[in-house]
Amino acid sequence: MKVGVIGLGYWGPNLVRNFLAQKDVKRVVACDIRESRLKSIKDKFPSAELTTDCNSIVKGDFDIVVISTPVDTHHSIAKEALNSGKHIWVEKPFTFSSNEAEELIEIADRKNLRIFVDHTFIYNGAVQKIKELVDKDELGNILYFDSERINLGLFQRDVNVVWDLAPHDLSIMTHLLAKHKMKALVANGIANFNGKENLAHICIYFEDNCFAHFHVNWVSPVKIRRIIVGGDKKMLVYDDMENFEKIKVYNSGVEFNSAESIHEALVQYRIGDMFSPKVNQTEALALGAQEFILAINENRAPLTSGKEGLEVVRLLEATDISLSNMGKIVELDKAVLI
Amino acid sequence: MKVGVIGLGYWGPNLVRNFLAQKDVKRVVACDIRESRLKSIKDKFPSAELTTDCNSIVKGDFDIVVISTPVDTHHSIAKEALNSGKHIWVEKPFTFSSNEAEELIEIADRKNLRIFVDHTFIYNGAVQKIKELVDKDELGNILYFDSERINLGLFQRDVNVVWDLAPHDLSIMTHLLAKHKMKALVANGIANFNGKENLAHICIYFEDNCFAHFHVNWVSPVKIRRIIVGGDKKMLVYDDMENFEKIKVYNSGVEFNSAESIHEALVQYRIGDMFSPKVNQTEALALGAQEFILAINENRAPLTSGKEGLEVVRLLEATDISLSNMGKIVELDKAVLI
Amino acid sequence: MKVGVIGLGYWGPNLVRNFLAQKDVKRVVACDIRESRLKSIKDKFPSAELTTDCNSIVKGDFDIVVISTPVDTHHSIAKEALNSGKHIWVEKPFTFSSNEAEELIEIADRKNLRIFVDHTFIYNGAVQKIKELVDKDELGNILYFDSERINLGLFQRDVNVVWDLAPHDLSIMTHLLAKHKMKALVANGIANFNGKENLAHICIYFEDNCFAHFHVNWVSPVKIRRIIVGGDKKMLVYDDMENFEKIKVYNSGVEFNSAESIHEALVQYRIGDMFSPKVNQTEALALGAQEFILAINENRAPLTSGKEGLEVVRLLEATDISLSNMGKIVELDKAVLI
Amino acid sequence: MKVGVIGLGYWGPNLVRNFLAQKDVKRVVACDIRESRLKSIKDKFPSAELTTDCNSIVKGDFDIVVISTPVDTHHSIAKEALNSGKHIWVEKPFTFSSNEAEELIEIADRKNLRIFVDHTFIYNGAVQKIKELVDKDELGNILYFDSERINLGLFQRDVNVVWDLAPHDLSIMTHLLAKHKMKALVANGIANFNGKENLAHICIYFEDNCFAHFHVNWVSPVKIRRIIVGGDKKMLVYDDMENFEKIKVYNSGVEFNSAESIHEALVQYRIGDMFSPKVNQTEALALGAQEFILAINENRAPLTSGKEGLEVVRLLEATDISLSNMGKIVELDKAVLI
Repeated sequence: MKVGVIGLGYWGPNLVRNFLAQKDVKRVVACDIRESRLKSIKDKFPSAELTTDCNSIVKGDFDIVVISTPVDTHHSIAKEALNSGKHIWVEKPFTFSSNEAEELIEIADRKNLRIFVDHTFIYNGAVQKIKELVDKDELGNILYFDSERINLGLFQRDVNVVWDLAPHDLSIMTHLLAKHKMKALVANGIANFNGKENLAHICIYFEDNCFAHFHVNWVSPVKIRRIIVGGDKKMLVYDDMENFEKIKVYNSGVEFNSAESIHEALVQYRIGDMFSPKVNQTEALALGAQEFILAINENRAPLTSGKEGLEVVRLLEATDISLSNMGKIVELDKAVLI
Repeated sequence: MKVGVIGLGYWGPNLVRNFLAQKDVKRVVACDIRESRLKSIKDKFPSAELTTDCNSIVKGDFDIVVISTPVDTHHSIAKEALNSGKHIWVEKPFTFSSNEAEELIEIADRKNLRIFVDHTFIYNGAVQKIKELVDKDELGNILYFDSERINLGLFQRDVNVVWDLAPHDLSIMTHLLAKHKMKALVANGIANFNGKENLAHICIYFEDNCFAHFHVNWVSPVKIRRIIVGGDKKMLVYDDMENFEKIKVYNSGVEFNSAESIHEALVQYRIGDMFSPKVNQTEALALGAQEFILAINENRAPLTSGKEGLEVVRLLEATDISLSNMGKIVELDKAVLI
Repeated sequence: MKVGVIGLGYWGPNLVRNFLAQKDVKRVVACDIRESRLKSIKDKFPSAELTTDCNSIVKGDFDIVVISTPVDTHHSIAKEALNSGKHIWVEKPFTFSSNEAEELIEIADRKNLRIFVDHTFIYNGAVQKIKELVDKDELGNILYFDSERINLGLFQRDVNVVWDLAPHDLSIMTHLLAKHKMKALVANGIANFNGKENLAHICIYFEDNCFAHFHVNWVSPVKIRRIIVGGDKKMLVYDDMENFEKIKVYNSGVEFNSAESIHEALVQYRIGDMFSPKVNQTEALALGAQEFILAINENRAPLTSGKEGLEVVRLLEATDISLSNMGKIVELDKAVLI
Repeated sequence: MKVGVIGLGYWGPNLVRNFLAQKDVKRVVACDIRESRLKSIKDKFPSAELTTDCNSIVKGDFDIVVISTPVDTHHSIAKEALNSGKHIWVEKPFTFSSNEAEELIEIADRKNLRIFVDHTFIYNGAVQKIKELVDKDELGNILYFDSERINLGLFQRDVNVVWDLAPHDLSIMTHLLAKHKMKALVANGIANFNGKENLAHICIYFEDNCFAHFHVNWVSPVKIRRIIVGGDKKMLVYDDMENFEKIKVYNSGVEFNSAESIHEALVQYRIGDMFSPKVNQTEALALGAQEFILAINENRAPLTSGKEGLEVVRLLEATDISLSNMGKIVELDKAVLI
């Protein structure tokens, strides 16, 4: 296969490196309009080929076009690539609007091409282990999902903190809670500096009484990357800042005895053992690239296809609507969502 | 002074012990209708006197009546005590409604009596240190307040998690951010078990673009008691689960340069030293009891008077309205709030 | 049973409280020459009887004499108590010398009386769980025991840091590694202030190549209470400063393949799951008091008898010899030790 | 300058990369007998030249020879390089014996060549900050140095855990405590697997009552990299596993009042503020390479010269003697040491 990578900013070199390492990939051509970035790629990966001509990739003789440019350019590049018959890999978030995403999905479907949206965390060993635990019903009925992704970070010029950080956690949540139907979203936050929110809280209600909350923040003095999944059998904490015990599964929970007298405590809790499973350390991006190539070869949708990318974009759009109306409730029509 | 303590449940014995230790207090009479609780008090504090007759306290020859009963009984006991000329100490939350609180404040004002609402954390060494840092403008302009109080705990029969846990953090926030006017409140959450919310997120908007968020949760596998106060000069984290370094002040922050080209990053952050001040370890309840007695002697309002108690009750009421309407925005009329 | 408690300093009130709570105990008489301490006991435990006359206990009508006085007085009080037919409970360390300990054991044996040495940690839920894991061979062959007990603490006037802190860890080690024969001891340390060591490291060699190390320190800026037990199947860490996950068992280890070429790595390690078992939270002292009473009733040695106390005293004596000779090797004749 | 790097194992690629980045360095030639390693260097650093001929470096036209081969080969390669007029950079530990080190130092002195021993941690931002604090007398008189470097790691075939891990901590200690004269060393440990110690404790006595302890361990379930420096004014903890607050300086300490009555506590401690200074994040190896080139240009010894390397080798030799005699005391003749 021949892969063209467009956009060599922060994440681009990782994409070049990982596609170079795929055994099905014969050539990788890296493209950016900035010469300094091309030089840096040449120094690090001498076997990669280089170009400043984006068109030569989009219209050239490639199997896969990897789009790692600012989000507002995703749609036009992706559309051209699909129209000239390429499978596309698009960085998160998929597009700037759900209309754009829907159009790309429609084109790909029509031309039988594959879209891979790079929700990298879905291929992370810890998330895969959690998915396994959820699917095996180890946690029981899921009561809530709570995510915190905060630190002191460089502001994005073009998007707010939600579009920058929340795609990670929204994609993890939709992956883990695929069986639960979302009902409504409420988002609150502030923009202290440049009119773009630098801190936000997103709450999502589900039809079955499950609940999700996300805290994203660019102005925290401490770095926290933590997800709690609370089930009625077990609960787990995924702390990505831990070097070793990233996932802790607590055999603790709440027992509700509805038959008891209302004069007594109706709910009890139990504290039990804790278990921290070993987590696969393989680089998530390597597994993502592998899944994409496999999906192309098997003529099927990858795990994180356009559909999954669209769902996250819809949640981001709903968040923006709610944020700009001080926490207004936005109904999520699940029928539309999938 | 002569003190009567009504209600000897979880917190009652601490109240008895701390009033017994005040040098201005000559007698403490403890009251509960359950004999087992009276026996337990007798074993631990033989110098306390005991009674099962609540009326003998409310109408008797006492200076102070301490009300540590379920919240739905606060108003009636407090009203009787005030009407028979007692200063009152009321456990948090002050009352079940703002109407009740307003009535008690009106009676106390008319009869020149003192109301102390037991927002204990205001007398905690860590909170006092943070207040000092905020008031000395060490943190600069406050951007946001974020609080998390979650663990696996016994459910309250009579109230939801908000009325149980949030008064702590709401009182800390109103104390620290007294200069900032609140504008609106949005609360989201779920009730997984008995119709009372066991998990909730409260967001508060301020008129000056400050923002506050509170997470309270009875069904978390891990215990977190953490407050972040983000200022534009410094930021601090107060972690009440730390045995030693409870407060960490980060000389880190965000620098916004509006004059720069829009093609460059407009916002930069700096990472600097961290400082953990020594925190006074005196029991907060002892300092609270001392403040109340001093306020009575000096004929002035205590630090946590009925007014502060009322403000928290209004926020709890607003939270309930928002929660029961899936995150509906509730305007907070600050003129009313104080 | 009738229990007399002599010495009401730091630990004495805990002893009074726990013996009062034993259902086989009808009366507890507390004794100290300082009136202030007696008053404090009276305030806290009104059902305890009081005396300043130590002799009235030692020679009076008691079943058990509890000796919680400075270590240099243990022997004389204990001897008198045994000679007048009492079972004795002695705080750690048992005696100031092994000769003293041997004499007390001899008297007790002759008169068929029980000696309980208060190595409280043996009754701690975490240590009991570790003992269970070791005895069930969960860890495999024990390679080493490593203990750290350091913090900034008040200096003892009469003993060095070893006699103050190390009895805890030495008793835990001899309990866990009861099957391993000790061979020699080396201790190093310094006395920076008053001629008594304030920091020491003790190393113990075993006949079967097992090894133990202990770090005790009164002048550390941080508080660490940590034991590592390394086995060739699993390894565990017991961190007593953790509020929740006190024991972590690592399914990790070292695999030695002696058959491999010497040009290849001979030893590999594997990283596996981690498991944190629930630990019994019952107060250790309550379980200790219960065990002593049971041992008396069943006419058998308690789990921490004079023999176990003597073994720790011998290790303390050996440590002093080594320390005062700058780390000289002291042979431990195990035949003598038990 | 022209640099030849011999030995491209674990650390070699870092050396190649850092010398390539020095602006005074025009050419870097990398040498190893294994073709696979040369290929790996070529892929990563296309501007490096390659050879399998070690002699072409040692005897060729180079300014600096970097020796990153197994320790038992250091002396012969270094001697040849010095004899053909090269400045040499030698990985730690400097040599396999002090005799070897002395010979190399003698040759270099005679030929006015520079020796750099790669005790990288001396150029680490955290260690530099600690050195600054010690030299400014912020900690007061140093009471003790305590180091722990333990984890589950691959065993070295050719050396024990002391020669593998302790050079880091021994070099940090001799750097920080340069004013303190060492007096004697005691080392204890075990070899559970292949006859080489996998766990060891080293204690060092100083003439002025200062004390140092080192714990190195290849078979620990947890990874600890922690140094405590205890002074009589302040104490600090350097935790290299912390992502952010690597150094914590505690304004806590011990106050000894010798005039007080012996019936009172003679020693008190105070708990004060804690301070965590910002640490320079520059890669230590880059600063080391820079220092070496500067030392050559300025015709002076680098910060970590042969002398510092020799001192560490002598301590390693003393450790081996003590270890193989079950903790025998080894006198350190400081006059010889420097």
